[in-house]
Amino acid sequence: MLATVLHGPGDIRCEEVAEPKILKPTDAIIKLAATCICGSDLWPFRGLQPLDGPMHMGHEYCGAVVEVGSAVKTVKPGQFVVGSFCISDNTCPHCRFGFQSSCEQREFMSGAQAPYARVPLADGTLVATKTIPDDDLIPSLLATSDVLGTGWYAADAARVQPGSTVAVVGDGAVGLMGVLAAKQMGAARIIAMSRHKSRQDLALEYGATDIVAERGDTGVARIRELTRNVGADSVLECVGTSESMHQAINCARPGGSIGFVGVPHGVELNGEFLFFAQKSLLGGPAPVRRFLPHLMELVLSRRINPGKVFDLTLPLKDVAEGYRAMDERHAIKTLLRV
Amino acid sequence: MLATVLHGPGDIRCEEVAEPKILKPTDAIIKLAATCICGSDLWPFRGLQPLDGPMHMGHEYCGAVVEVGSAVKTVKPGQFVVGSFCISDNTCPHCRFGFQSSCEQREFMSGAQAPYARVPLADGTLVATKTIPDDDLIPSLLATSDVLGTGWYAADAARVQPGSTVAVVGDGAVGLMGVLAAKQMGAARIIAMSRHKSRQDLALEYGATDIVAERGDTGVARIRELTRNVGADSVLECVGTSESMHQAINCARPGGSIGFVGVPHGVELNGEFLFFAQKSLLGGPAPVRRFLPHLMELVLSRRINPGKVFDLTLPLKDVAEGYRAMDERHAIKTLLRV
Repeated sequence: MLATVLHGPGDIRCEEVAEPKILKPTDAIIKLAATCICGSDLWPFRGLQPLDGPMHMGHEYCGAVVEVGSAVKTVKPGQFVVGSFCISDNTCPHCRFGFQSSCEQREFMSGAQAPYARVPLADGTLVATKTIPDDDLIPSLLATSDVLGTGWYAADAARVQPGSTVAVVGDGAVGLMGVLAAKQMGAARIIAMSRHKSRQDLALEYGATDIVAERGDTGVARIRELTRNVGADSVLECVGTSESMHQAINCARPGGSIGFVGVPHGVELNGEFLFFAQKSLLGGPAPVRRFLPHLMELVLSRRINPGKVFDLTLPLKDVAEGYRAMDERHAIKTLLRV
Repeated sequence: MLATVLHGPGDIRCEEVAEPKILKPTDAIIKLAATCICGSDLWPFRGLQPLDGPMHMGHEYCGAVVEVGSAVKTVKPGQFVVGSFCISDNTCPHCRFGFQSSCEQREFMSGAQAPYARVPLADGTLVATKTIPDDDLIPSLLATSDVLGTGWYAADAARVQPGSTVAVVGDGAVGLMGVLAAKQMGAARIIAMSRHKSRQDLALEYGATDIVAERGDTGVARIRELTRNVGADSVLECVGTSESMHQAINCARPGGSIGFVGVPHGVELNGEFLFFAQKSLLGGPAPVRRFLPHLMELVLSRRINPGKVFDLTLPLKDVAEGYRAMDERHAIKTLLRV
């Protein structure tokens, strides 16, 4: 089959690879309904993350089960499933605590920018729909696999509640999903920090009440102005740089919470600063599996439309164009038809 | 009056100073029933915190109101009061959010190692008892002013709940109060990390179920052994060094929470480490005022005895001996009779 392989910085190819096979009795093979490119795929694409040989890309997926290993009990061929980008058994103490992304058997999904993919620990990882969903819901179901689940976790980790004032740092796909999540959780005010018109528009559509185009200290000062000098109850950090992390912390009120889901690159936090800031911090790879049944239900009942975050759709063979469009910020997020 | 002044590293004196006066209409003057030395007083005593001239020491206090400014409405002369080491108006948005230690008008109390002290923002800061408490309750009431309130905040910030497994890093007075707080909050298991017999004994008396004498990676490994390789739900960090902070983070389970109340000295936290650790962090100067009415009630009804943490009692004139005893770890905490 033709699938996506990264050979080096900027060198992404759609090339012939072997079809996936059941390797363990707990595996499933799925035929993807669609797949997509993640902001985190750009780190190795840009050479900012070391490559250990050619890398089979893609960790967001949904589609039909075509084969299961002998130990798989909860899904069967023919069913439509969505799974998290974090593979988990959903039975260990960390999973039962709601942190499936720290599962004792955690693996990160790979090789999903392809027509077929192997999903380990299928029983713990996959959630099946009752019936085959309508085609137009595929982008939104695909979004639950990572980008929506990650934005949702950012809002959950930032303890967004009904009536909260929320600031979202980062207007990438995850930040926009964070806006959607905060809205669903009942936030009264959602301040999207964004400099790009198309992203501002989508943020407003997803529920943002205010847009702040400024960054850094100026951005923090704007948040203070907008909150009567109090700061935001909850801040979603969806970038991962030192500047964005400090911006997020400084936007929160004392006693407020920051959920950080941008993978930190070059971030160091001073202990005394954190102490006197007196703000709660929780981050990490999102335990999407915790939220997945709820998010799928919100999509299937058409109460949310996270799929709108895909503003570029390409056939899988043109995956390189999709990476370039995201790298150059022409596209927020690229959906790949397989 | 004779009061405590720090002139330089190790140079602590009980010397004649002017009696405090009402400076603002919101002030109160109190006659202290007792006062004490805080672990944080040792930072400047040891020369680890710069001194800007002679420093009037002491921020833990309880006693009788002797005079109030013209704007003070909630306390009056003759009443017995306790106040937080953080001065707060208790009306600003941060106070109403429960973070009085980040009050818009925050000041830190000073000059309380003395017979009399001025308390700014008396209405927001002081809590009066209904009647004059029995003398034997004075040490415990004094403890609510900071050391118990700080240990309590550590447990609150670490989200201790009924049934929680808790680890306490640091066996100083605050750590021991953290054990007491965790017990009161219903923790099922409280692991005190302590190497000193007398402190281990007091930890056990306050509710610790296990003692771990090891530190650093060995200590973390012991916590894992004791928790079936899961880690603690809640960790109270009560030291403030880089080693203790990393130890605390590594003792918590993924999704667990760390409340850190040791003022960090030389602590830097790596963003990527925090991300993949996936643990919640909240610290800062304790908003004791939030907890004070409840803690005073627990003391007055004799349900807790935090005053036992004072294992050395001296007259105020011997304050230098009290500092030395704590500096050399002969005493956990020194109470000063005024």
